[in-house]
Amino acid sequence: MLGHLLTVGDEILLGQIVNTNAAWLGERLAEAGVDIQRSETVGDDVDRIATSIERAFSDGAALVVVTGGLGPTHDDVTKAAVAQVFGRDLQFRQDVFERIEARYTSRGRTMPPVGRVMAEVPEGFEALPNSRGSAPGLWGEREADGRRQLVVVMPGVPHEMQAITNESVLPRLVALQDAVVLSRTLLTAGQGESQIAETVGDLFEAFPPGLSLAYLPSLGQVRLRVTARGADRAAAEADLDRATDAIRDRLGRLVFGEGTTTLEAVVNEMLRVRGLRLGVAESCTGGSLAARITSVSGASDVFCGGVVAYSNGAKRDLLCVPGDVIDEHGAVSEPVALALAAGARQRLGADVGVSTTGVAGPTGGTPDKPVGLVWVAYDDGETSRAVRLQFTADREANVALSVSAALDLVRRQLARRERAGG
Amino acid sequence: MLGHLLTVGDEILLGQIVNTNAAWLGERLAEAGVDIQRSETVGDDVDRIATSIERAFSDGAALVVVTGGLGPTHDDVTKAAVAQVFGRDLQFRQDVFERIEARYTSRGRTMPPVGRVMAEVPEGFEALPNSRGSAPGLWGEREADGRRQLVVVMPGVPHEMQAITNESVLPRLVALQDAVVLSRTLLTAGQGESQIAETVGDLFEAFPPGLSLAYLPSLGQVRLRVTARGADRAAAEADLDRATDAIRDRLGRLVFGEGTTTLEAVVNEMLRVRGLRLGVAESCTGGSLAARITSVSGASDVFCGGVVAYSNGAKRDLLCVPGDVIDEHGAVSEPVALALAAGARQRLGADVGVSTTGVAGPTGGTPDKPVGLVWVAYDDGETSRAVRLQFTADREANVALSVSAALDLVRRQLARRERAGG
Repeated sequence: MLGHLLTVGDEILLGQIVNTNAAWLGERLAEAGVDIQRSETVGDDVDRIATSIERAFSDGAALVVVTGGLGPTHDDVTKAAVAQVFGRDLQFRQDVFERIEARYTSRGRTMPPVGRVMAEVPEGFEALPNSRGSAPGLWGEREADGRRQLVVVMPGVPHEMQAITNESVLPRLVALQDAVVLSRTLLTAGQGESQIAETVGDLFEAFPPGLSLAYLPSLGQVRLRVTARGADRAAAEADLDRATDAIRDRLGRLVFGEGTTTLEAVVNEMLRVRGLRLGVAESCTGGSLAARITSVSGASDVFCGGVVAYSNGAKRDLLCVPGDVIDEHGAVSEPVALALAAGARQRLGADVGVSTTGVAGPTGGTPDKPVGLVWVAYDDGETSRAVRLQFTADREANVALSVSAALDLVRRQLARRERAGG
Repeated sequence: MLGHLLTVGDEILLGQIVNTNAAWLGERLAEAGVDIQRSETVGDDVDRIATSIERAFSDGAALVVVTGGLGPTHDDVTKAAVAQVFGRDLQFRQDVFERIEARYTSRGRTMPPVGRVMAEVPEGFEALPNSRGSAPGLWGEREADGRRQLVVVMPGVPHEMQAITNESVLPRLVALQDAVVLSRTLLTAGQGESQIAETVGDLFEAFPPGLSLAYLPSLGQVRLRVTARGADRAAAEADLDRATDAIRDRLGRLVFGEGTTTLEAVVNEMLRVRGLRLGVAESCTGGSLAARITSVSGASDVFCGGVVAYSNGAKRDLLCVPGDVIDEHGAVSEPVALALAAGARQRLGADVGVSTTGVAGPTGGTPDKPVGLVWVAYDDGETSRAVRLQFTADREANVALSVSAALDLVRRQLARRERAGG
């Protein structure tokens, strides 16, 4: 199915915000079998929006997806433009109005007058529920030039647009194409894209052509998205199971989760399930490790606290790292990393301690201890383990990579602990 | 001048990369007086690129800026499309070839065969030097429909594109418009866009029409970009001075810097100049405050360390907050915020302590202490000060806003300290 993407907003044209909606939609629509020919941004202007939609259809698009220019702050220019292109009037829809009103009421707020405008829908269009906001999505169809032409309109607020896409738009698009497209994402930490690809790449040569694999790398992590296209859901599900089982088999403990979870959420949950509490000692990560852990709501149940020990004095006084260990080995060393992890556990009254110490850069490196050298360590009173890493990125990325490595060390040690205990 | 932006690349359409080039160019071109009507992305396809350029000119654009689809990995589809639209042949240019070859040689590398292709330029076009890479930018002009039409082509690699834009494209565009365009950015913290606009908005009514002001809000900060368009540089500079002086006069201490610096860099520098060291005690910000401070290279000179005291036990044991103060007022309170700041200063051996305690959300709120309530406090042994804040954003944003508020409190207190001392 040929598609066209239109994002509406003066603030995008002026570069005041980066167009992440286009990237997100591009990725999801491609997975759903839509071949996007052109992605376009115009300002909040009815004529420009209408021109773009008309051109897209005359270029052969079967689907035009429009985001933005909808809802209270945009004067609903997009809705007016779509109604104009399709030659439909806007109709007030009582059911949509009540849904919007109920949303305001449930939050103890009064619906503003603009609620009535949001409840207007072009004649013959469907209103798609917006589980994260007020303005509904719109789905319209027509026959023109002997072909079916579809338009989908959604608000520009990313989490609202994403919810409508996932809950309504993608399932409908897949259904329309007489095909089922299912995907599942495996999350890995600890190896780069090329290492992962070497380990699992050949699997897909033996798989049916409807199965595909995309590597989506980010700092310290690689997401593996497996997509199965098939005539029916059961067959696609079976293909997906087979492929993800085979990948998990090869990658083993590198896989830390599925879907949209995060390494920090997985670690939080592992601690919760085991009834353990974590303490953190950070040098080179400067607070970022604690910040990642506490970014998960409810972290206070499993996180005692942390110490950012930038100075050797703080390492000694707050975390009981013996001064002679620092003097002998230097602050960036295995013994200090281990002493920091043990100190965090003991001083913070935690069950498990984790630490980082390293040279984030861009300055501070020596021939022995170059920029990017980082030690992370784990200590739970019975077991302790330190891992040496050598990164080559800039300061910000070296810190982010160190944080991921520390979280991943805790994850692996907790998994091992369970296995040993069971 | 009406403009059109065209970014080329399958990887952008598929959402594999986010189109930051469009945002960056949108912002810079707007400052240079170009009114971007439409921003578009197409894949690596000569016909689609050519169609977009032709449509843009027939829509009335005087300038089409194209990035991507140029250089060794893209088969130079963009160059072929532009040559086709302008009806020009590609010519091998010895001078361009030598520049490319010299770049490879200076890095001890041999030029690959594709170097010859990169040296081909559409007849009559200028090659714009690329100080950060091999493929040159291209500048072409023609007369059509009685109007001058300009096309600019640049590689899609962001730092190459940005260098060519800054060094060649913007100066030429400004010169073409018989005008100088200068801009300066003032950075403010502590008030929202609407409050700032109320304070300074009327200033611009009295200023000449060549002066304009853009508000660029982000979490806890508003950047004010003043742009002056004038016939000559001296006049534009004078206008800019006058406008920024007037804004600084109105906003006073709300302005923390100019240009591309950050609040954390300013605080680092203020500490360094005064020979002071900072200690941090965090509750609701969970490490993010320390992480922001240590994101600045060289922070170890002015930052002793921090304690993330999520539990009341950690507040007591590591930061000496009296248990009865926590019992009486609760952890989220002015007395605890002040005790945390004092504890951070003393326990970390710092000159200045700063603290945060609050309810980041989404859970943990009570009628008395709702989600978003945050105290930040400062203590330098002589002076202490706490500020109460009430945010209404989500967990992540509440944390970021709290961090900015804490940094801004330190900035203001240090500035006051200097004033009192001097």
